[in-house]
Amino acid sequence: MFFASDNWAGAHPSINERLSKESTRFAAAYGNSDLDKAVEARFNEIFERNVSVYFVSTGTAANSLSLASIARVGGVAFSHTEAHVIEDECGAPDFFSGMRMVPVEGEDGKMDPEKLSARIAGFPQDSLHHGRAAAVTLTQATETGTIYTLDEIDAITAIAKANGLPVHMDGARFANALVSLDVSPAEMTWRRGIDILSFGGTKNGCWCAEAIVFFNPELARDFAFIRKRAAQLFSKTRFISAQFDAYLQDGLWLNMASHANSMADRLRAGIGSLNSTRLAWDTTSNEVFAVLNKASAEAAEARGAKFYGWPVPTNMPEPVRDDETLIRLVTSFATTEEDIDQFLSICSAS
Amino acid sequence: MFFASDNWAGAHPSINERLSKESTRFAAAYGNSDLDKAVEARFNEIFERNVSVYFVSTGTAANSLSLASIARVGGVAFSHTEAHVIEDECGAPDFFSGMRMVPVEGEDGKMDPEKLSARIAGFPQDSLHHGRAAAVTLTQATETGTIYTLDEIDAITAIAKANGLPVHMDGARFANALVSLDVSPAEMTWRRGIDILSFGGTKNGCWCAEAIVFFNPELARDFAFIRKRAAQLFSKTRFISAQFDAYLQDGLWLNMASHANSMADRLRAGIGSLNSTRLAWDTTSNEVFAVLNKASAEAAEARGAKFYGWPVPTNMPEPVRDDETLIRLVTSFATTEEDIDQFLSICSAS
Amino acid sequence: MFFASDNWAGAHPSINERLSKESTRFAAAYGNSDLDKAVEARFNEIFERNVSVYFVSTGTAANSLSLASIARVGGVAFSHTEAHVIEDECGAPDFFSGMRMVPVEGEDGKMDPEKLSARIAGFPQDSLHHGRAAAVTLTQATETGTIYTLDEIDAITAIAKANGLPVHMDGARFANALVSLDVSPAEMTWRRGIDILSFGGTKNGCWCAEAIVFFNPELARDFAFIRKRAAQLFSKTRFISAQFDAYLQDGLWLNMASHANSMADRLRAGIGSLNSTRLAWDTTSNEVFAVLNKASAEAAEARGAKFYGWPVPTNMPEPVRDDETLIRLVTSFATTEEDIDQFLSICSAS
Amino acid sequence: MFFASDNWAGAHPSINERLSKESTRFAAAYGNSDLDKAVEARFNEIFERNVSVYFVSTGTAANSLSLASIARVGGVAFSHTEAHVIEDECGAPDFFSGMRMVPVEGEDGKMDPEKLSARIAGFPQDSLHHGRAAAVTLTQATETGTIYTLDEIDAITAIAKANGLPVHMDGARFANALVSLDVSPAEMTWRRGIDILSFGGTKNGCWCAEAIVFFNPELARDFAFIRKRAAQLFSKTRFISAQFDAYLQDGLWLNMASHANSMADRLRAGIGSLNSTRLAWDTTSNEVFAVLNKASAEAAEARGAKFYGWPVPTNMPEPVRDDETLIRLVTSFATTEEDIDQFLSICSAS
Repeated sequence: MFFASDNWAGAHPSINERLSKESTRFAAAYGNSDLDKAVEARFNEIFERNVSVYFVSTGTAANSLSLASIARVGGVAFSHTEAHVIEDECGAPDFFSGMRMVPVEGEDGKMDPEKLSARIAGFPQDSLHHGRAAAVTLTQATETGTIYTLDEIDAITAIAKANGLPVHMDGARFANALVSLDVSPAEMTWRRGIDILSFGGTKNGCWCAEAIVFFNPELARDFAFIRKRAAQLFSKTRFISAQFDAYLQDGLWLNMASHANSMADRLRAGIGSLNSTRLAWDTTSNEVFAVLNKASAEAAEARGAKFYGWPVPTNMPEPVRDDETLIRLVTSFATTEEDIDQFLSICSAS
Repeated sequence: MFFASDNWAGAHPSINERLSKESTRFAAAYGNSDLDKAVEARFNEIFERNVSVYFVSTGTAANSLSLASIARVGGVAFSHTEAHVIEDECGAPDFFSGMRMVPVEGEDGKMDPEKLSARIAGFPQDSLHHGRAAAVTLTQATETGTIYTLDEIDAITAIAKANGLPVHMDGARFANALVSLDVSPAEMTWRRGIDILSFGGTKNGCWCAEAIVFFNPELARDFAFIRKRAAQLFSKTRFISAQFDAYLQDGLWLNMASHANSMADRLRAGIGSLNSTRLAWDTTSNEVFAVLNKASAEAAEARGAKFYGWPVPTNMPEPVRDDETLIRLVTSFATTEEDIDQFLSICSAS
Repeated sequence: MFFASDNWAGAHPSINERLSKESTRFAAAYGNSDLDKAVEARFNEIFERNVSVYFVSTGTAANSLSLASIARVGGVAFSHTEAHVIEDECGAPDFFSGMRMVPVEGEDGKMDPEKLSARIAGFPQDSLHHGRAAAVTLTQATETGTIYTLDEIDAITAIAKANGLPVHMDGARFANALVSLDVSPAEMTWRRGIDILSFGGTKNGCWCAEAIVFFNPELARDFAFIRKRAAQLFSKTRFISAQFDAYLQDGLWLNMASHANSMADRLRAGIGSLNSTRLAWDTTSNEVFAVLNKASAEAAEARGAKFYGWPVPTNMPEPVRDDETLIRLVTSFATTEEDIDQFLSICSAS
Repeated sequence: MFFASDNWAGAHPSINERLSKESTRFAAAYGNSDLDKAVEARFNEIFERNVSVYFVSTGTAANSLSLASIARVGGVAFSHTEAHVIEDECGAPDFFSGMRMVPVEGEDGKMDPEKLSARIAGFPQDSLHHGRAAAVTLTQATETGTIYTLDEIDAITAIAKANGLPVHMDGARFANALVSLDVSPAEMTWRRGIDILSFGGTKNGCWCAEAIVFFNPELARDFAFIRKRAAQLFSKTRFISAQFDAYLQDGLWLNMASHANSMADRLRAGIGSLNSTRLAWDTTSNEVFAVLNKASAEAAEARGAKFYGWPVPTNMPEPVRDDETLIRLVTSFATTEEDIDQFLSICSAS
């Protein structure tokens, strides 16, 4: 019953096997091996266009260096108030990009287009003292388990483009969003106006596999140097490539995300049907936010369930009572039906 | 015949096995798992004292963040002219530490103590315009395949301490130096006055395993934040831990380094005995610098041997003739006697 | 009728004279002259304790380098939402300090102590992902023309101290606040718990005279290097010293601020008494925020009056009508009664 | 007898008068006044083309922000080993530009073109690990009192251009070089291939007047933001403009530089003719390097003469004996014949 985060899961056996196979041979370092080239080419296929791909070690690195690649002096980047770049990365995006992250409010973990417009208007291009708008970054799936529809992405990118701003997508849970929307990678990204993508594999069954995908190669002009100076160029890069090679093979990545999402569906259905539990809000990814009787939560923890409490938003439709608690549950490729049924059973009995 | 670098090798089977085993379970993220704690404790044993250990993704990160942890505004760090921090890291040490790297000359890839003293004297602590001395960093084994003796390390750290400067050791090839000197990790580091160590595993049979070891925990005071802001905190940190767990188990790390060194010995002996080849200078680690007849070098390359040319130093005892070329050959845990004998045989025949 | 800002004024004749006198002699550069030492000693007297004083070129530099001197990696600094460090300095505080500025709301341009407490609580000292509280900065007088009372400063510094945070005061209009409260410099600063002060002279009759005053010399430990590396060490520092020498002589600084404040009083009285104008909110410094009939505003501008519009806050007690406009009027040492009476007369007639 | 540095001098009376006149009026802040615009236009005339001009507070700021404007990630900038950017600015150029300063040797304080070529060749544009060439900066007049001839500048810029590198000139003593060469500002800068100039006024009779002149406006694209974020935008910018207004009026700047140079000529002639003194090397600017009998030096100091000792270069044509000392003497607009004759007379008598 490990629902604390999808990064508590291990790695998929196919990924292990691919790594073990790779480990027996010699090959060129620093991303220059045949495997590195082959995996880069694979990204072209996945995204149906020529892209520039760079591997880095963490999601924080992917987001921070993406923003660094489009940074402007005195620039600010707009993201949702709860975005990882603002809330969870210890200022790394500001450190690497030299830009301030400006929060934009919005329901359901998504930037409100009107509020984004208004925020951008506060940072005109000649705004020497206050700072100038330089980038927009959105998270797909969001931090609160929701997913931008294609139309909602369009609305954000349209505003960005109208203001001449590049758009970055934080795809730490890209695959979960993709299979939930049932669209292609191209449809959810560059066809919507996304310029740069943090393509996350770690949370979805890899060990350490994060890629930055540039749909506009011009933006990647200096990126090899940005990455190297940021100490993010692995000597044995091919072990990241090997993970992606297995990950992208025969739809493994989509299958793992589908599994995680369907386990979350099972959780959602169960939590919605019990008396002692309810869904805090609707989600469609592998994250579930639930209000539990404190007794249920304590019973589950006593039996070994792992999950984190979550701060109660001010705008909850139904308030969280004193004898209740708000928690986040995250499923992964490794979550089993048994895990979920056991968890629900404990809650049901409390 | 892959002698281009030890980072062209794959990973040792024991490390693969340990990773595969780790991949099947759930565990806490961001370095908070039982395994992470166990491996940290293992470092205490290895070094015979309580140390603070932090994993990062690359050797460049290990060096740069080590220096960042002891940085002073307006400070400079002293290293050998050919050190990785100056020559090969794209300015990452300067970027993360905010300090300039000041080169110190010396024979055999080692800082000359007198020249180090003289350099430090040029940057007194009140030197507002020129900058002030803040750190010393030495590489063990060096970039040119040599190894500081314990006395030589003592000479460097004595000067540093006399000037109140902390000392960092870049141990990208730490194990190779250790087994060559046949001393304990403690003897080669903190007992000699080393304060911080970049402990490298990647070049010696891991996939991606670099640790920063603080012998003086006070210097690590802010380090968790320095690493996180540098985007170097892995969510699935335990896969680095797992590599180190196998690496440090039953002396695997020392055995791999011994193997690499002895393969280099075999190369050294062979190269020294042929007519068409000679050793450029003496080395005792897993790096060999050789002068080959160009015909030999070309023949070897034509047969698939991989190695890099090396710039000819100005102070070679015996000059490199026009029909000769200077190359670097690096062995690893994966190098075989057959590789070496084949290489020597090709050279011998050319 | 120059009410756009107090930095539109020139310089006081006494300051000119002192500079002219200084210009005829030779003296040591980089802050080492007798005059530099004498003026530093004068700050000790003014603040009734030994302080460390450093001159810089701009208010932005004073604030940014103050924050840099107390910065922590992964740290955040708290200020009012409308503070200069957030709104008007192009990210310089973030750039020099490496910290994010976190806004704290509050009425009348002042941080609300409870909201400050709540904000700080969101950044505990072990908050590796979200960031840790590192500093508080308050502006005296505030950006909206109000002034923290001594009790209000106490309330802020008490919270900061309880959380172990140093406190900076942005005193771009320090003298205006001081004479309005009618207290001593010591009473408004270190006796209230302020650790570092941006002591502004430029807006109050100097040409370019900004000082950073450290009440806790320990915090200034590295500051000479911080300033030099920030390119803020003037070679002819004594010309800043000369300005401060005249500024602090015979209470000139307080007299200029008193004059500016009393001119603002005259404006406040007049604006409050006319039909076509009203005070937007109460202020007690040299800044006046007024709601004018648009006709009055246009008439005044047509006659040469200079002032800036101001964004209408959401919480105005009395809303700004469509035929009205909200403006800011700033007085200075150079403002005359005639300027004010002419302005009021134009408004009165429109 | 103030020969310590030209920044020990005060300010010229005409500059005082212009400042005093400016102090009596109101005008727009942050460089938007009529005077600011007029002085900017004046730079166009001086340089015989449209230039972009930005004022900053110090020579260090001028150099550092110039380099920041042309910085590339992983880039390095080449300068003479003794250049101010390497020796005297506490790492500010590295801090603001993010680039390492790479020293280039050369006689007489000037980069040797062949050595510059060789150095640049070591940093090719795809040199990911070692870093890539990004800029060249030369100092005119040099730190050792010499002056690049037009041909020598051509040689440097030709190499830079052949490598696609922009060229910056540190003109802290620009006027002294100009009158010594007897050429126009255009001839010594953009007609020679200089892209950006640090145009110094402080050492030549101003109080604080440093400008960055962009001959290629494209390079200044982001500069307003670079300067503001660096805390270098003065609110009362017009007081810098006022200094330049007087400085550039009726050739005052050239007259002051001519005077300083001719005072240096007088020193050179005298020192060359005495038994107890000799010129250490030839100079043609307002800096003189002299070898004095220690007795003479001590006598001069005892009588109030101010000067600094200078480190003895390794390649002095005639060695400095134990009873001698090498000193630097700098003249300025304020140096008098009496100062010099008194100094020479003391030396002559010792």
